[in-house]
Amino acid sequence: MILYGEANPAPNPRRVRIFIAEKGIDLPETRVNLRQREHKAPEHLARNSLGQVPTLVLDDGEAISETVSICRYLEALHPANPLFGTTALEQARIDMWIRRVEFQLMTPVGMFWRHAHPLTAALLTQFKDFGESNRDLYARACKWLDRDLGDGRSHLAGEAFSMADIAALTTIDFATFTGLEMPEDVANLRAWHARVSARPSAAA
Amino acid sequence: MILYGEANPAPNPRRVRIFIAEKGIDLPETRVNLRQREHKAPEHLARNSLGQVPTLVLDDGEAISETVSICRYLEALHPANPLFGTTALEQARIDMWIRRVEFQLMTPVGMFWRHAHPLTAALLTQFKDFGESNRDLYARACKWLDRDLGDGRSHLAGEAFSMADIAALTTIDFATFTGLEMPEDVANLRAWHARVSARPSAAA
Repeated sequence: MILYGEANPAPNPRRVRIFIAEKGIDLPETRVNLRQREHKAPEHLARNSLGQVPTLVLDDGEAISETVSICRYLEALHPANPLFGTTALEQARIDMWIRRVEFQLMTPVGMFWRHAHPLTAALLTQFKDFGESNRDLYARACKWLDRDLGDGRSHLAGEAFSMADIAALTTIDFATFTGLEMPEDVANLRAWHARVSARPSAAA
Repeated sequence: MILYGEANPAPNPRRVRIFIAEKGIDLPETRVNLRQREHKAPEHLARNSLGQVPTLVLDDGEAISETVSICRYLEALHPANPLFGTTALEQARIDMWIRRVEFQLMTPVGMFWRHAHPLTAALLTQFKDFGESNRDLYARACKWLDRDLGDGRSHLAGEAFSMADIAALTTIDFATFTGLEMPEDVANLRAWHARVSARPSAAA
């Protein structure tokens, strides 16, 4: 199989790289250069009609896209060191937290990047006032997450590091890259961020 | 366990109702009245700090939210008639299609509802130009999906009806409710929509 991805700071390819590092899977990333628009070239559109990375192409040519779906598939092939949980309840909790991170945290970051960031302005029509309004949504989402972590658990979905932590770490780091900082008064969230950033996989 | 939901047209509670109808699970919905803001009352916020429905409260009091996570949990308890696939590859395909529906189709519908619909204008500050721009994004997403269905498969993730079809059906029906119609020239998508709408579960 071939994993098509991209270098930092794109958050989705990094999610897969961290996942692979945590699992100890040997799957090097074949880089698709987004700045040179290689993801919109016919060769890549044949793999993914939306022109996205990451995309995982299997040996028979079938392509799986969507970061979480790729990781879920790799987890099924390599069940050791589970990052999606093992019991039905653990799996539901982790799935819920992945989705909460995506909808509450990543959506405003993505909308800020799409509609307010100067790098994107060069490529696409922006609704800048809307884009800027996502600064506040991101800050509020960080505060909500900080309050929720106030129960003292070490990771988003409980005591075990999981795919939900990967989703949140990469979102927050990408937010910082775009110019969205975590608010000052989120001690629980900052402690969690320091904890997951200290893992060797975070360098991926 | 208690499933908290809401009547039509809210798409997420309907997703769970269709899932339950397809699986033949006996789990009546306890309605939370969104128009009377019952989802933001302390009683419901204790179940879900984001004040969302649906939320599934287990017998020990733990609450699982996020529609897809709730359905995934119910599927683990009731594996017969699988709607998330059984092999690793089927599960990855279905997961990918759920996510594509959510990010490509539901995001513009949700943003249109949030930022351009008169019912929402009464409750929240809108960025109307941005909201209106989602009409075109929704139409383009429908056309992309129509082209992708051009390979002749009967359902989104292959020949079997799955959670991805539930996600798309409820998204398109909610879009219609908000005033976003499917474009005219999407014959494959319209045929798929007629096919899944004809299932008894679609009445849920």
